[in-house]
Amino acid sequence: MNPSSARSGLQLRSTIKRNGELELSLVDTPVPEPAPDEVVIRVEAAPINPSDIGLLFGAADMSTAKRSGTADKPVITARVPDKLMKAMAGRLDQSMPVGNEGAGIVVEAGASPAAQALLGRTVAAIGGAMYSQLRCVKVDQCLPLPAGTKAADGASCFVNPLTALGMVETMRNEGHRALVHTAAASNLGQMLNRICIADGIGLVNIVRKPEQEKLLRELGARHVCNATSPSFLEELTEALVATGATIAFDAIGGGRLAGQILSCMEAAVNRTAKEYSRYGSAVHKQVYIYGGLDMAPTEFVRNFGMAWGMGGWLLFPFLQKIGPAAGQKLRARVAAELKTTFASHYAREISLAEALHPDAIAIYNQRATGEKFLIAPNRAQP
Amino acid sequence: MNPSSARSGLQLRSTIKRNGELELSLVDTPVPEPAPDEVVIRVEAAPINPSDIGLLFGAADMSTAKRSGTADKPVITARVPDKLMKAMAGRLDQSMPVGNEGAGIVVEAGASPAAQALLGRTVAAIGGAMYSQLRCVKVDQCLPLPAGTKAADGASCFVNPLTALGMVETMRNEGHRALVHTAAASNLGQMLNRICIADGIGLVNIVRKPEQEKLLRELGARHVCNATSPSFLEELTEALVATGATIAFDAIGGGRLAGQILSCMEAAVNRTAKEYSRYGSAVHKQVYIYGGLDMAPTEFVRNFGMAWGMGGWLLFPFLQKIGPAAGQKLRARVAAELKTTFASHYAREISLAEALHPDAIAIYNQRATGEKFLIAPNRAQP
Repeated sequence: MNPSSARSGLQLRSTIKRNGELELSLVDTPVPEPAPDEVVIRVEAAPINPSDIGLLFGAADMSTAKRSGTADKPVITARVPDKLMKAMAGRLDQSMPVGNEGAGIVVEAGASPAAQALLGRTVAAIGGAMYSQLRCVKVDQCLPLPAGTKAADGASCFVNPLTALGMVETMRNEGHRALVHTAAASNLGQMLNRICIADGIGLVNIVRKPEQEKLLRELGARHVCNATSPSFLEELTEALVATGATIAFDAIGGGRLAGQILSCMEAAVNRTAKEYSRYGSAVHKQVYIYGGLDMAPTEFVRNFGMAWGMGGWLLFPFLQKIGPAAGQKLRARVAAELKTTFASHYAREISLAEALHPDAIAIYNQRATGEKFLIAPNRAQP
Repeated sequence: MNPSSARSGLQLRSTIKRNGELELSLVDTPVPEPAPDEVVIRVEAAPINPSDIGLLFGAADMSTAKRSGTADKPVITARVPDKLMKAMAGRLDQSMPVGNEGAGIVVEAGASPAAQALLGRTVAAIGGAMYSQLRCVKVDQCLPLPAGTKAADGASCFVNPLTALGMVETMRNEGHRALVHTAAASNLGQMLNRICIADGIGLVNIVRKPEQEKLLRELGARHVCNATSPSFLEELTEALVATGATIAFDAIGGGRLAGQILSCMEAAVNRTAKEYSRYGSAVHKQVYIYGGLDMAPTEFVRNFGMAWGMGGWLLFPFLQKIGPAAGQKLRARVAAELKTTFASHYAREISLAEALHPDAIAIYNQRATGEKFLIAPNRAQP
């Protein structure tokens, strides 16, 4: 490989302009010479996670998306509704690279032994800007994949696996013994289900479709509740009694579900209450909202006593909180169980140019279970 | 005093029957002979706190209240709406005494020196059932009042003072440096305002009426925001910037206010943000809901990033958490500043029979600022 040509490649960029226009484009971007503790990865596979979509589209209304440019250098523009521009203030007119994680081959390495050891190896990496043909990262942002692992199989090594493990760790650290998960048939949900089965932890899976219910049951899930069932609240309460779950992780965010979970937890706890308390049970009930699949307002009736909490949950602050040693343990488990517990499935593999096509956007922007896309930045364009 | 006659007195009782009827009545109740570590108090004054009203009326619709019985032994009945009966399941057909706190004179004492030392003294006490003419409590539930203090001046020694001090302690323990309080012109709010002025802590007071704004400013409050002002959100944001408050205590609960506080906190924090984060600021923003002046659903738009929490806050779990030594420090401060920092004001003093009058109920059940009632159980009936 010619080092000079190796040091630039296409990178997907997202800009929200002061006039309210979102612009997505592919920009030929130079890659710096790697420092001693850095490597340059030729990115072969990078998933489109819901957390990436937030940065990619911002608050833009993607039904207004228009494509221009050329076939291999397409440009997408879309409108950000005026009332949402305030929330975009922090990123106006900045050309932002996208892509939390991915995997590929190390094509250039810095002088340190740790960097040199990775040369030619397939590694997963985290750190943003992974929707790039070439990406220079620090060695400690990489996870070397076991020999023979394809980049596509290691592309989702960090966000979903560490989030699923982080939920279980949070459950333990905060003194709960079982947990609830919504949007539970997602890639992440399936991982969590496998972890809970392996570790003997009670898990209540909440889904919205019969086929998702079926899928999870086939994967060994014992407690699956369909939120569209007319007896959902009763079924959820029974599952909470059976598992003793008093903490939930909610990917939906909007609407009434988070509050319903707290209400059903309170009903489940009170099944065994011995004395009336006007303040409700003394057992702390917690819902962490970690996603925003429903951007509508969150609404709840406070019929679950006073011992409750709702809050945001995010992977990176969690990892900071537990510290590097505990984080390394989680990473080691991911590497060891990459093809089993932490296997991901993708609906389609697309090029960078294809990622900027309104038809593809219309699908992956739904963030629907079973419709996860994988970008292959070095695949022929378009 | 004749010991046998001293051992029974009227007690206010609340019962919700299986048929959906609330019944309030005055029951002649025997008082046990005090154990060595107990005293019998002739209760002279007991406030009607919002936390008492929850137990007193349960979920009953008090617009349906009817009075029967006799002038000195009145009975109030009211209907509990069917859909709210589920939440009452824990207390059905139980005749429950009411009244968290109060003050009075120790008329009988157990054999221990600690109990004997209180004989004849005016003490405040906590522990429920204080809407009683006579109440037997443990010595450690009592706070002896400084000589010359009237029972009425010590009746609200516990709930409001310890709640106000608990808010400040919680603020400190959770790493915040200033706080927000809603329904801030209440007795509790005025105490909190005095504490914050004395201790040099930033406090943002949220009220709903111009006269409450005026009252707090006259009491030295620097930051008072009126939630009904058309520029409320801007004014609140400015006050949050000025104080750096990232924790709030909300007595309202229902509606949008709790979420608006989080949104304005995020806007205030982002004033000084240096880098865009799609997840919002990393500064944790917290709202504790400690009351339910508005029983409507809580609703919020999640436009404040991921570092946020909302939850219930209650005095007794807080006191348990900090332990007896820390709790004793707070009590000592209350006793020392009873006539200044922790002074309470009452709109009216009523007898037990008067407390069971629909006209009085219509007023104190509003829980309106400036309309707090004090029950004098040994005042001539009615």
